[in-house]
Amino acid sequence: MQPIRVAINGYGNLGRAVEAAVHAAPDMELVAIFTRRDPQSLQTRFAPAVHVDQAAEYVGKVDVCALCGGSATDLTDQGPQFAALFNTVDSYDNHALIPEYFETMNQVCAQNSTVSVISTGWDPGLFSIQRLIAEAVLPQGQTTTFWGRGVSQGHSDAIRRIEGVAAGIQYTVPVEEAKASALAGNAGEMTAREKHRRECFVVAAEGADQEQIREQIVTMPNYFEPYDTTVEFISAEEMERDHARMPHGGDVIRAGQTPQGADQSIQFTLTLGSNPQFTGAMVTATCRAVARLAAGSQSGGVSALAGAYTVFDIPPALYSPSSPEQLRKELL
Amino acid sequence: MQPIRVAINGYGNLGRAVEAAVHAAPDMELVAIFTRRDPQSLQTRFAPAVHVDQAAEYVGKVDVCALCGGSATDLTDQGPQFAALFNTVDSYDNHALIPEYFETMNQVCAQNSTVSVISTGWDPGLFSIQRLIAEAVLPQGQTTTFWGRGVSQGHSDAIRRIEGVAAGIQYTVPVEEAKASALAGNAGEMTAREKHRRECFVVAAEGADQEQIREQIVTMPNYFEPYDTTVEFISAEEMERDHARMPHGGDVIRAGQTPQGADQSIQFTLTLGSNPQFTGAMVTATCRAVARLAAGSQSGGVSALAGAYTVFDIPPALYSPSSPEQLRKELL
Repeated sequence: MQPIRVAINGYGNLGRAVEAAVHAAPDMELVAIFTRRDPQSLQTRFAPAVHVDQAAEYVGKVDVCALCGGSATDLTDQGPQFAALFNTVDSYDNHALIPEYFETMNQVCAQNSTVSVISTGWDPGLFSIQRLIAEAVLPQGQTTTFWGRGVSQGHSDAIRRIEGVAAGIQYTVPVEEAKASALAGNAGEMTAREKHRRECFVVAAEGADQEQIREQIVTMPNYFEPYDTTVEFISAEEMERDHARMPHGGDVIRAGQTPQGADQSIQFTLTLGSNPQFTGAMVTATCRAVARLAAGSQSGGVSALAGAYTVFDIPPALYSPSSPEQLRKELL
Repeated sequence: MQPIRVAINGYGNLGRAVEAAVHAAPDMELVAIFTRRDPQSLQTRFAPAVHVDQAAEYVGKVDVCALCGGSATDLTDQGPQFAALFNTVDSYDNHALIPEYFETMNQVCAQNSTVSVISTGWDPGLFSIQRLIAEAVLPQGQTTTFWGRGVSQGHSDAIRRIEGVAAGIQYTVPVEEAKASALAGNAGEMTAREKHRRECFVVAAEGADQEQIREQIVTMPNYFEPYDTTVEFISAEEMERDHARMPHGGDVIRAGQTPQGADQSIQFTLTLGSNPQFTGAMVTATCRAVARLAAGSQSGGVSALAGAYTVFDIPPALYSPSSPEQLRKELL
C-alpha cells in the first residue's frame, strides 16, 4: 500500500497537532506544511514549510490537505482556494453558516474533481455523529449537548477586551445536575443558566479596579449575563502555570423511549487534556477517510464522487488503518 | 418518496420491537411477519403473519427483511436462507464466529444480488462503531468495554439448569472503580473479577436446599467462579414483579494520549430500560440504511454492490430519515 500523502495548511496549535498525528500514523506521510508566513521563520518538525503561494506546485504530490486555518475567517477563503487544488479536510465550526460553506465547497470540488470533508473535529465532528445516530435510533426523545469543562476562545477574548485586563481566560463548565436531568429525559425546560456556568480567571493590569472589571464581565450581555459567572483574580505567573493547557470536552446526551415504552438513554462523553491535540487527531483520521473516499476505496462498496461531504457521509471503517477483515474480527 | 417496505422474520421479543419501531417510522411500511409457527396462532400488531415457507412469494414486495431469529443457531440457517431472497439485517452476536458468518453471507448476497448487514444492535453494533472510531482517533490508548447492569441470558440459563431451581435470573454488573480505572488509562491489568460482578436472583423449588444451590452457582467454572457472585433467594411473585423487564447497557471507554502527550478519554454509555426494544430500534435504523444502500442511495457519493456489510461500512446519514441538508443544518 502506498502511504497517504498529507499536506497541512496553517501552523498554529491545530496544524502542529495534525503534524504530530500524521507523523505517528503508520499509513501516512507528511509532504509539506503550507504557511502564509516566511517559511524560514517556521520551526516545523516533520515536513518542510512551504509558502502558500507555492501550494499549486504540489498538485499530484498530495492526496489530502488538512486545512488548519486559525479561524472561521481563514477557512471561508482557504477552503475554496485549497479545494480547487486538493482533496481537503477542515474543522469549520461556525454552525450557523455551515450550509452556506458546504454549498461553496461543494461547487468548487465539483468543478475541480476534488473531495472535501468539512467541519470535522469533535463538535462539529464526533458529537455530530453521536447526535445523528442517537436520534435515528431513538426518534422519540431529546438530545442535549453539554460543553466543558473547557476553555472558550470567544469568551476569553471578550474578557481580554475589557480595560484593565492584562490577561484572561474563561472556562465553560457544565452543571452536573443538568446532565442528570438530561439523562432522565427532563432537559426540555432548562435555561442556559441551568446548563452551564462560566469561570473566569483574570490578571488585572497594575492599578486596575478589580471590582469594576468583575462587574463588567458578569453583566456582559449574551456572553456572561445569562450565566452564573465567577471571576477570580490571579497573578501572571499563575496564569502561565495553571492555564496554558487547553482542556475541553463535553457530553451528548439523548434520552427517550422506544415505541413500546421503555426508557432508554445514550451518553457520549469526551474528557480532553488538550482540545487542539484531540481535534488534530480527528482531523487526521478524517484525512485518511477522505484519501480513501477520493481514491474510490471500497468499504461497503463505496466509491466517491467529487464534492463536499461531512462526517455524516463517512463509513466508520474509512477512519481506521486496519483492514475490513481485522475490524470485523477485532472490533465488531 | 416511496416508503421502505420492511418484513420481519421471527416474532419473539426482538421481532416485536422491530415491528413497533418500523410502525413508528415515518418512512417505513411493514409488509409481513414471517414465522415458523402457525401464522393463525400469532397475535401480530401491524402486519399479517405469514408462514416462512411462503417468504419467497414476497420477493419484489420487500426492500429489506429484519432477521429476528431468537438465537445464533437460528441465524446461521436463516441468514443465508433469507439473504438469497431479500436484503437483510440481523443482530448476529456470536463474536468469535462473525468472520465465518460474514463470509457465508457475503457469498450468498453476491450470488443473489442482495445486500445484508450483519451484527447490528448495540454490541455488536453501536459499541462496535464507538470502538472503531475511538481507536482511529486515539491510536495510542486502550479500549475497555463494560456490560450492565443487565440480564445475561446465558448466565440465567446456567442457573436454571441447576437442580432445585424453579426460576433464576442473572445480572451482570460493572464495577464502578474499574470504570474509573479505565477512564484513567489503567485498564490493562484488570481481571474479569475486577471488571464485573454477578448478581443472581433465584426462586428455589419447594424443599430445595438453598445453600447447596448457592454453592453450585458461585463455584460454576467460567460462568460464575471467576467473578464475585451474589445469590439472593426470592419468591415467584417477586421474580415476576421485579425481574420481568430486560434492562441492560454498558460502556465503551477508550483512554489514551495524543502524540504530543495530552491525556484524552472517550466514553460511550448506554442505559437501557429494555434490551430487546433498544436492539430492535437499532435494527430498524439499520434496515433504513440497508434499503438505501441497496437502492444505490447516494450519501457521500455512495452506491452499493451486492454483498455483506457491517455497521463499519454504513455512512451515519443513512440511518436517519432526514435529508442531508436537514442533517447538516440541524445536527452538524
